[in-house]
Amino acid sequence: MSNTPDTVVRAYLAEHRAAFLQDLAEWLRIPSVSADPAHAPDVRRSAQWLADKLTETGFPVAEVWETGTQEAPGAPAVYAEWPCGDAAAPTVLVYGHHDVQPAAREDGWHTDPFEPTTVGNRLYARGAADDKGQVFFHALGVRAHLAATGRTAPAVNLKLLIEGEEESGSPNFPALLHAHRDRLACDVVIVSDTGMWSEDTPTVCTGMRGLAECQIDLYGPDQDIHSGSFGGAVPNPATEAARLAAALHDEDRRVTLPGFYDGIVELTDRERELIAELPFDEKRWLGAAHSHGTLGESGYSTLERIWARPTAEVNGIGGGYQGPGGKTIVPSSAQLKLSFRLVAGQDAERIQDTLRQWVADRLPAGIRHEITFTGSTRPCLTPLDHPALTSLARAMGRAFGQEIRFTREGGSGPAADLQDVLGAPVLFLGISVPSDGWHAPNEKVELDLLLKGAESAAHLWADLAATYAGGPAARA
Amino acid sequence: MSNTPDTVVRAYLAEHRAAFLQDLAEWLRIPSVSADPAHAPDVRRSAQWLADKLTETGFPVAEVWETGTQEAPGAPAVYAEWPCGDAAAPTVLVYGHHDVQPAAREDGWHTDPFEPTTVGNRLYARGAADDKGQVFFHALGVRAHLAATGRTAPAVNLKLLIEGEEESGSPNFPALLHAHRDRLACDVVIVSDTGMWSEDTPTVCTGMRGLAECQIDLYGPDQDIHSGSFGGAVPNPATEAARLAAALHDEDRRVTLPGFYDGIVELTDRERELIAELPFDEKRWLGAAHSHGTLGESGYSTLERIWARPTAEVNGIGGGYQGPGGKTIVPSSAQLKLSFRLVAGQDAERIQDTLRQWVADRLPAGIRHEITFTGSTRPCLTPLDHPALTSLARAMGRAFGQEIRFTREGGSGPAADLQDVLGAPVLFLGISVPSDGWHAPNEKVELDLLLKGAESAAHLWADLAATYAGGPAARA
Repeated sequence: MSNTPDTVVRAYLAEHRAAFLQDLAEWLRIPSVSADPAHAPDVRRSAQWLADKLTETGFPVAEVWETGTQEAPGAPAVYAEWPCGDAAAPTVLVYGHHDVQPAAREDGWHTDPFEPTTVGNRLYARGAADDKGQVFFHALGVRAHLAATGRTAPAVNLKLLIEGEEESGSPNFPALLHAHRDRLACDVVIVSDTGMWSEDTPTVCTGMRGLAECQIDLYGPDQDIHSGSFGGAVPNPATEAARLAAALHDEDRRVTLPGFYDGIVELTDRERELIAELPFDEKRWLGAAHSHGTLGESGYSTLERIWARPTAEVNGIGGGYQGPGGKTIVPSSAQLKLSFRLVAGQDAERIQDTLRQWVADRLPAGIRHEITFTGSTRPCLTPLDHPALTSLARAMGRAFGQEIRFTREGGSGPAADLQDVLGAPVLFLGISVPSDGWHAPNEKVELDLLLKGAESAAHLWADLAATYAGGPAARA
Repeated sequence: MSNTPDTVVRAYLAEHRAAFLQDLAEWLRIPSVSADPAHAPDVRRSAQWLADKLTETGFPVAEVWETGTQEAPGAPAVYAEWPCGDAAAPTVLVYGHHDVQPAAREDGWHTDPFEPTTVGNRLYARGAADDKGQVFFHALGVRAHLAATGRTAPAVNLKLLIEGEEESGSPNFPALLHAHRDRLACDVVIVSDTGMWSEDTPTVCTGMRGLAECQIDLYGPDQDIHSGSFGGAVPNPATEAARLAAALHDEDRRVTLPGFYDGIVELTDRERELIAELPFDEKRWLGAAHSHGTLGESGYSTLERIWARPTAEVNGIGGGYQGPGGKTIVPSSAQLKLSFRLVAGQDAERIQDTLRQWVADRLPAGIRHEITFTGSTRPCLTPLDHPALTSLARAMGRAFGQEIRFTREGGSGPAADLQDVLGAPVLFLGISVPSDGWHAPNEKVELDLLLKGAESAAHLWADLAATYAGGPAARA
């Protein structure tokens, strides 16, 4: 048997698996819960632990970066850098996070969430999959890459940015990116904070939806008034809130905001074919959704609806009397909380402007309103034929020994900030599977898949270097 | 100047005004707040006070009636009866209530709500207008009637039923009516618990709207789910609640429930003329409604909308996240509280059946629902040409020295129970004006109007006796 890069990588991983897992367990024991101020020292300890470990791995630069402001400090991030030495080599930035969701034994954990426990192929711990495991496989992966290529530095300029408050909504992340924009400059971003379709169907995520959120407050009478004495002759803000929410969709459940679908990047026939080929089990999917039926924009499948179609969702509606029994009033006010999931080609600001006008146009005299836009995240999407995506699928294909398929994420995340601020395409290298239980008790990671993650990374750097060798033109 | 009945009545009232007001003040000092269990002894004391006073007035029968059950006793009512002695005379039942709304000095009262205070022509006290004042003018009225006619008993068989828990929703009233149906039998019911258009425009109310209330609970996912991971592909109960509420009205703000308007007693041209002639000031009306615009069924004026047209009102709507900021969920459930004001010719049960079907037809698969009907009140309406109504308008016209106009009430009340159980037309003899402040701090009654009430009653019994003298045929 010849010493191909694949066999060298596999041998390296087998040899270092035990030490890798021992190190990971040490990191998982640090309860870096960013949401809980009491754990702030742990989050800091986690950052320092990672920086030290990356130095030990060989990264010539490994720093703990402060975030936030002096008045409102954020949790520290970790930045590491390992230059290739070749000026023509592409630069890759790996994104992940070292903070974790809260966890307590009494939430239903079978073992201590901060005492990693291995059962067969599974490692149970808070953060095992989300996201320490998926960050840490890069430390192993880059060493395997060096072993397989005989290099002393990676084939790409490798940068890591590991955030410390992703589980708290990444409040300081855009500012951090802007502040360090020059040092973070890169050709490709690899996000390792997502999952795959399943253990049997390894996949690469190619995009996430964006998000625009707003609240609409409607005011009618200055106080609740008697529905007998006045009802039927004055506008009712609860009725108007309902009419707005209802008017957001037509009978085909398409969003009715003018121009909402204008300019969006439509699914190609090939993408629809690939999605249709995925082994989708609607009954299982409904179970995961805790739902009892599917409903959405007509003409699209469930996966297309959540991955590639924009939505308008009523997150909350309220107005008038909501206690037990009845109360015959025309309520004084009502409120709508809406969110729009956006896809590539849509612009949150344009939709906000449209919505502002649309709401104003639909409300009758006697109803005053306020719209508050509470935040937005851009969508991101990498075309299926992007060379870097091809590299990633090829590297993973070597690790998994099968063709890699493509998925998207319906949710929204800081990946879009990376794409926006750094101006680089964002790819997703994640090996978590739906049963891993992110944010839930008994979070786990499949150890074999964790090693496949390291193996994918080990192949990826050389592949990307080759892909980008043709210079910027090849990087389209 | 000849001793006409009118001058005798007026002289009688002038002579007894001071004693009448002194007695009324004594009654108003009893805080008969039915909503507050701590005041139960006061409600009982109030009932006994009235029964004693009616005995003193001359009623041969004056009883305190218990209500409710042994397990859940209600507040006592007062029943009094003064037979005419003439078997052919009509029987009239006067309805009012002796309980009052809660009141406390700190709510904004300028004087103690239970220490009646006279300022010029106004008597301030909780219950002054709603409803002790309007009940008690009947005690004075019947004595004036005897004085003017020289009779020792009224010209009609006069019955009084004065409820003790109207301000608590009359929970035991229908049962009380059924239990005493035989003793309460009558040809006409006179409700003295309403008001007039204004001091300058004395009016008789000819009807009240009915009411049907319901709650619709909608259930989607078994728990709130992530709007990114699942949104756009599963039904959202908040959206469906909004779609139901919005679909209740068309663009002309007509209620869309199938058959909703079928069989209703439409306003006659004459009634619309009379309504249009009332000195309606929209700006003032909007002030009373605390509202900033009018809106309702197209083709009808504001007064027509609240008096003579049925409505569908959203009293409450709720679902999903209603706290500060946003939460990107598809909510698990949502709720609608609806009420329908009904007009003569509409049937609450038929509307409930229609609604049940309508809701079931409109909800998508994956949304489970429950409808709970929480109560209904029938509408009541006396035609403008009803002989008893003509009598009442004539009697009031003599008291007020001007033509009496006609109004309706948009609200719903126990009057409908009286009409239903006793099978008699219900007329409204009320002298309160909008500024009296029912249920509000500084409730008052205009003393001159209170005396006009007594004067109207003094003329009414003789007029009704004459009207009904022709026998049942004349009573159509």
